[in-house]
Amino acid sequence: MSHRVAVYRKEHFNAAHRLHNPEWTDKVNQKVFGKCNNPNYHGHNYELVVKVIGDPDPHTGYVMDTKLLSDLIRENVIDKFDHKNLNLDTEEFSLLNPTAENIAIVIYNILRAHIDTRLDLQVRLYETERNFVDYPV
Amino acid sequence: MSHRVAVYRKEHFNAAHRLHNPEWTDKVNQKVFGKCNNPNYHGHNYELVVKVIGDPDPHTGYVMDTKLLSDLIRENVIDKFDHKNLNLDTEEFSLLNPTAENIAIVIYNILRAHIDTRLDLQVRLYETERNFVDYPV
Amino acid sequence: MSHRVAVYRKEHFNAAHRLHNPEWTDKVNQKVFGKCNNPNYHGHNYELVVKVIGDPDPHTGYVMDTKLLSDLIRENVIDKFDHKNLNLDTEEFSLLNPTAENIAIVIYNILRAHIDTRLDLQVRLYETERNFVDYPV
Amino acid sequence: MSHRVAVYRKEHFNAAHRLHNPEWTDKVNQKVFGKCNNPNYHGHNYELVVKVIGDPDPHTGYVMDTKLLSDLIRENVIDKFDHKNLNLDTEEFSLLNPTAENIAIVIYNILRAHIDTRLDLQVRLYETERNFVDYPV
Amino acid sequence: MSHRVAVYRKEHFNAAHRLHNPEWTDKVNQKVFGKCNNPNYHGHNYELVVKVIGDPDPHTGYVMDTKLLSDLIRENVIDKFDHKNLNLDTEEFSLLNPTAENIAIVIYNILRAHIDTRLDLQVRLYETERNFVDYPV
Amino acid sequence: MSHRVAVYRKEHFNAAHRLHNPEWTDKVNQKVFGKCNNPNYHGHNYELVVKVIGDPDPHTGYVMDTKLLSDLIRENVIDKFDHKNLNLDTEEFSLLNPTAENIAIVIYNILRAHIDTRLDLQVRLYETERNFVDYPV
Repeated sequence: MSHRVAVYRKEHFNAAHRLHNPEWTDKVNQKVFGKCNNPNYHGHNYELVVKVIGDPDPHTGYVMDTKLLSDLIRENVIDKFDHKNLNLDTEEFSLLNPTAENIAIVIYNILRAHIDTRLDLQVRLYETERNFVDYPV
Repeated sequence: MSHRVAVYRKEHFNAAHRLHNPEWTDKVNQKVFGKCNNPNYHGHNYELVVKVIGDPDPHTGYVMDTKLLSDLIRENVIDKFDHKNLNLDTEEFSLLNPTAENIAIVIYNILRAHIDTRLDLQVRLYETERNFVDYPV
Repeated sequence: MSHRVAVYRKEHFNAAHRLHNPEWTDKVNQKVFGKCNNPNYHGHNYELVVKVIGDPDPHTGYVMDTKLLSDLIRENVIDKFDHKNLNLDTEEFSLLNPTAENIAIVIYNILRAHIDTRLDLQVRLYETERNFVDYPV
Repeated sequence: MSHRVAVYRKEHFNAAHRLHNPEWTDKVNQKVFGKCNNPNYHGHNYELVVKVIGDPDPHTGYVMDTKLLSDLIRENVIDKFDHKNLNLDTEEFSLLNPTAENIAIVIYNILRAHIDTRLDLQVRLYETERNFVDYPV
Repeated sequence: MSHRVAVYRKEHFNAAHRLHNPEWTDKVNQKVFGKCNNPNYHGHNYELVVKVIGDPDPHTGYVMDTKLLSDLIRENVIDKFDHKNLNLDTEEFSLLNPTAENIAIVIYNILRAHIDTRLDLQVRLYETERNFVDYPV
Repeated sequence: MSHRVAVYRKEHFNAAHRLHNPEWTDKVNQKVFGKCNNPNYHGHNYELVVKVIGDPDPHTGYVMDTKLLSDLIRENVIDKFDHKNLNLDTEEFSLLNPTAENIAIVIYNILRAHIDTRLDLQVRLYETERNFVDYPV
């Protein structure tokens, strides 16, 4: 039996965004994205849950110190996206549509580069309490 | 690496139900189901979380538009079960015992028929904050 | 300055109910109460928050022991209403319409008789996360 | 003893905003409002709880039908602010700084005009789970 | 009509404590405080909600900047109690029984000294999700 | 297609603990575990979610009666850890560091011995709302 444990850390950020595909007309964008296409943006309190999987270290009992995980998320993700306009203020979404799916993939890729490769990683992002995504699955 | 993302949408409905096996005596039903066997029914605020897994569409960034997913859940599940007596008012549970397990299986089967077969599907149903189920696993 | 403190204890019960005024026709009942008038009942996970206000006892530091408050609520309210049909299984609502307002008034009156008159009392009842009431105000 | 009951209804909307006083320099605005002054806006999932106080109607047992209260909130508040940029897309905040305090006052004034004057009214607005306001007090 | 608004800020701390009256025998302490009297302590995730009431400043739209309120709570309350044994590690509860009631009174008195006297103040403390207190009332 | 369903039951307990490796100096312990190393302990409201996976019984519609599951968790886990100091009052953590990871493994091993081997088992433990673990994965 494996002794692998999943450790989760929850953080949050507040951001504005707009769903829009620049290759489409305004009419098509409005039809596909509805009120999420509002030209002047709207916003969310994003809740981010980061899951790290591995064997607990026998000396500490930690898979990963959640204080370190929290610092890492804040420095690499929260400081970049919190109180920002995702479309206008970030390089990541200057061309990529900031759907919850794409934001989760971007955050995963950012964090993956900072976490020990022996540890598995998954990201959950709540756009609202009723809409959320996991990546990868 | 897969780019599959899971998208979740949460909805709710309020219903009355009673746990009962008509092949058993009242005494056995009372012993097995306890206060959940109350002849005049009791009820719950059911919270339903529907999970859909697939690759985000490159043009929209959506696995599935959660607005469409929400509409689909409301039309096919919520309108059928909300403010109903599951045992008396629904065909699905006229013979099938409405445990959380069975309700989740029924809801999965209803939704499966309406969702693109390239997408995987899972249903979570909260009967209370402290009792809930997933199907399938 | 007063040293009065409010102490809260949260409990829950699950019940079926139906909103209906027997002095009205079915048509009027349906018009006024909509799907809450469903003849076969529907149900809720009721969350009950009981607030007791008074001065902390100098020897215990308690306004009232929440363990005793919890026991009192369970014996007098939860055991009476949990897993019941409020309209059919309880004397209190055999004639009185079980709206959240009326259930809160009934619970207040039950508890008021069991709590020291030097302590003020208020009841909050959540019918759903989005609909709730306070009594008295 | 009064029979007045408070009835609450919770709704939500998602919006972008920016805190800014046009009479101040950018430097002062940045000092006072910090990251909430971001020129390209940020956003929130606002949770709105509307409280209505009065005597339950003896025929219905309702202070006010929460279905009607919900419709009234949606038509007059949610449709106006949901998926909008409060500063750019609404008349109410074209000149008024959209702090949680001011948004609550604006929503109260909108709703007050639509609710029976025999009923008292209060608004609670959650900007985040950790920052919220009540008006009036 | 008053324009007074209540502003709330939620923070949390984790602490160990034990309920005990040193003037009583162990037997009486055990009888009164039950398992909360455990000699080796137990603990809680305390959630603290601080409410400040006043008129919004016409230039900022703030009753009080919640960022400043948060800093003030962290410096004066959280840094003092977080990850501490309330009975052993704090002066405030070396003699005073750390019931939720007494902790709330202590926190109120600490914060009252740091907040503008034109602003009213109230403290809510959650010991668990089901047990909480307000002071003053 | 499998008909396996996952059933979850949530319980909670309040406990004190301290993170500490007796093979290390105080200085190293302080460096590694920070404020979680406080010699006089701190504490948490632990939320425990137990997941049991299997096929629903065709006669009951239950994978496992959550009332029985709840009793089993209370008798074997909650009664052992609730209102205790994990380091001082329990055999399990007299030598083992009570990180969330290790507590989850210990609880899993306790429960595994009491649950039908045809059923799969997983434990989730919330140390706080923002830090939690799953075992096994």
